[in-house]
Amino acid sequence: MPMSNPAASRPSVDAALRARYRRKYEQELFERVIPFWEQHSPDRAHGGYFNNLDRDGAVYDTTKHVWLQGRQAWIFSKLYRTVEPKPAWLEMARLGVDFLRAHAIRPDGRVYFSLTAEGKPVYLQRKIFSECFYVMALAEFSRAADRPDLLREAKDELEKIWTWAYDSAQVGRPAYEGAPAAQSLAVPMILLNVIEEVAGEDTLPYAAEVDDCLRRIRLHIHADTQKIYETVAPDGSRIDSPAGRLLNPGHAIETGWFVQHWVRRLHRDDLRQEALDIVRWAYQTGWDREHGGLFYFLDADGFSPVPLEWSMKLWWPHCEALYAHLLNYSLTGEASDWAAFEEVDRYIFEHFADPDYGEWFGYLDRQGRVTHRFKGGPYKGCFHVPRALWLCWRLLGDWPG
Amino acid sequence: MPMSNPAASRPSVDAALRARYRRKYEQELFERVIPFWEQHSPDRAHGGYFNNLDRDGAVYDTTKHVWLQGRQAWIFSKLYRTVEPKPAWLEMARLGVDFLRAHAIRPDGRVYFSLTAEGKPVYLQRKIFSECFYVMALAEFSRAADRPDLLREAKDELEKIWTWAYDSAQVGRPAYEGAPAAQSLAVPMILLNVIEEVAGEDTLPYAAEVDDCLRRIRLHIHADTQKIYETVAPDGSRIDSPAGRLLNPGHAIETGWFVQHWVRRLHRDDLRQEALDIVRWAYQTGWDREHGGLFYFLDADGFSPVPLEWSMKLWWPHCEALYAHLLNYSLTGEASDWAAFEEVDRYIFEHFADPDYGEWFGYLDRQGRVTHRFKGGPYKGCFHVPRALWLCWRLLGDWPG
Repeated sequence: MPMSNPAASRPSVDAALRARYRRKYEQELFERVIPFWEQHSPDRAHGGYFNNLDRDGAVYDTTKHVWLQGRQAWIFSKLYRTVEPKPAWLEMARLGVDFLRAHAIRPDGRVYFSLTAEGKPVYLQRKIFSECFYVMALAEFSRAADRPDLLREAKDELEKIWTWAYDSAQVGRPAYEGAPAAQSLAVPMILLNVIEEVAGEDTLPYAAEVDDCLRRIRLHIHADTQKIYETVAPDGSRIDSPAGRLLNPGHAIETGWFVQHWVRRLHRDDLRQEALDIVRWAYQTGWDREHGGLFYFLDADGFSPVPLEWSMKLWWPHCEALYAHLLNYSLTGEASDWAAFEEVDRYIFEHFADPDYGEWFGYLDRQGRVTHRFKGGPYKGCFHVPRALWLCWRLLGDWPG
Repeated sequence: MPMSNPAASRPSVDAALRARYRRKYEQELFERVIPFWEQHSPDRAHGGYFNNLDRDGAVYDTTKHVWLQGRQAWIFSKLYRTVEPKPAWLEMARLGVDFLRAHAIRPDGRVYFSLTAEGKPVYLQRKIFSECFYVMALAEFSRAADRPDLLREAKDELEKIWTWAYDSAQVGRPAYEGAPAAQSLAVPMILLNVIEEVAGEDTLPYAAEVDDCLRRIRLHIHADTQKIYETVAPDGSRIDSPAGRLLNPGHAIETGWFVQHWVRRLHRDDLRQEALDIVRWAYQTGWDREHGGLFYFLDADGFSPVPLEWSMKLWWPHCEALYAHLLNYSLTGEASDWAAFEEVDRYIFEHFADPDYGEWFGYLDRQGRVTHRFKGGPYKGCFHVPRALWLCWRLLGDWPG
């Protein structure tokens, strides 16, 4: 396979090879992933989507998890707007947005975590992520459906989220005296992505917020040890506890491409190398050299991570890694970025993909055996797989050079 | 091996074989388990115990988890009172009780879930279990140390727990409109155990509460399908959701011996067979015929259980099963009960025990490989292993017949 010289400024992987990958992802996305959700998820009776779908798409739980309602509405809006204005896609997005606006949000702006099929509240998290995915859905749908009123709603909700984001007492989780002051990577990282979606081309009004997110994210990146810590002290220093030592390679890799997108938008070339490095370092640390695949969690000092599922291989870190390495390669042309991309692609199609029924399995044990046969659950829906495939397909079709 | 006739009313396993098991558990308990905690856990500077201990006993996190503070104080009080009045054991118990009373409980009776090494609050769960293990520690220590004032404290706290137990809004977890009315097996089961510990010989004042716990527990037992559901509707009917279909074999087996203890205390012979059956049914359903060991969770209808760790093998269900099968056998003399006991014993000593450093590993993958090297963590401390060994050792030494 032709590989570029590391010093080359332009990626030079053979155009035919790129075209083969593009075709592969196009087929996977539009023939095996999107149809799975189109066929099995819509709840035409009550609106919204069934997101708990068994291997073959059968509904095994009618609970509607709001993260996934929002994310699916976002995906179909995005495809409608950027791939093809299929009326069915817009209708699918509308099914989720209408359901969310009718049932998921409270008058105070808090958004439930889960609802019954009919839309009655089941659970409210003491976190801001349901709110974030609600906003993403509204923002993208507002553009797809030409509904500026919904963009206004999304922006208003984002303002509320912003005031809650770094003070969990505001969403009902008291901070006790002995709990160390800490910042979770998830918060600035998701906010950065939400702002990207809400702002669209009009980033200027969010300049301060984006700067703040980027500043906070950088606190987690410890270049001296090439580690990205999931939780750090407010000044970025390490917290010496299992939570403080926790590495989440998938989150770090996702952060890498989120930041890289902002590097491009804002011409922040000062952050370009760091965004490249985050992806490489997290991959280097997180890849299981014995069995392949990315660990879900690791302990930076080599202790056993406390979460029981630490050694499992989850679909979403691999989705993030697939796109992040391809994006890195498109920017650097370095053989190691391409090799990492291909290693992830191989692992995915040997382990997660399910040509028989479509969509991907979500959970494997360390050795790569499927542990959970369902395609959708409380945290897995129509989001990471189609987003990664769409991002890769788009990048491969719009290759720099 | 001589096996009894299933119809025999007295167990007839060879006395020498019983003595060998008794000696094995005595050595494990007093030479490899209790010394591990005696050597590594005491925090002489601040009181309480370090419960997050690595394989070799090194402290990898100084957070003090209150469930485990209470449970360890209970174990050392129990050993002092029922095995040997070693002053060091009483002092060990006092270290925990003093720390708990000084730091874990709030003026309103709520008990924190975790504290810093110094005793500052880190986290408060919206559940009653920290309170339950606090009460168990005080009750047993009050007897060991002859401190009737502490039994009074324990009883007062138990009264509060009772008023909170079936209304989680009282401990800060709102019930939303769409959440199905449900009862968790954990609550009546743990309460039954706490009452056993608080009441001592004086069970009469708790007759109504014990009856209520037994009534509630029976709602979870579906004799028609031989399944014990972890979560049921208030009338005992099945809830058709992943939570409603969830089986937790370890909890069911633990419930079996809790109930059997009350059968003996209250001469409730009407419940004797049910208590035997719970253990057998949960074992029958929960044992992994392919790789051995008890699954952590199963779905009653064969769907993939949603929790990521469902197929792992945890130490505590095996602790419960070891004693529960031995207790069953002591009551029935049936070969299948003895065989189940020996199957669990074999699995434990081939997988969980750690002759090199003492105590047992807590977490294995489905195939039986150790996934977490630590001996103590947020949910594993000085409790299930010594309790099971002590219960088995005591039963083998006081054999009916």
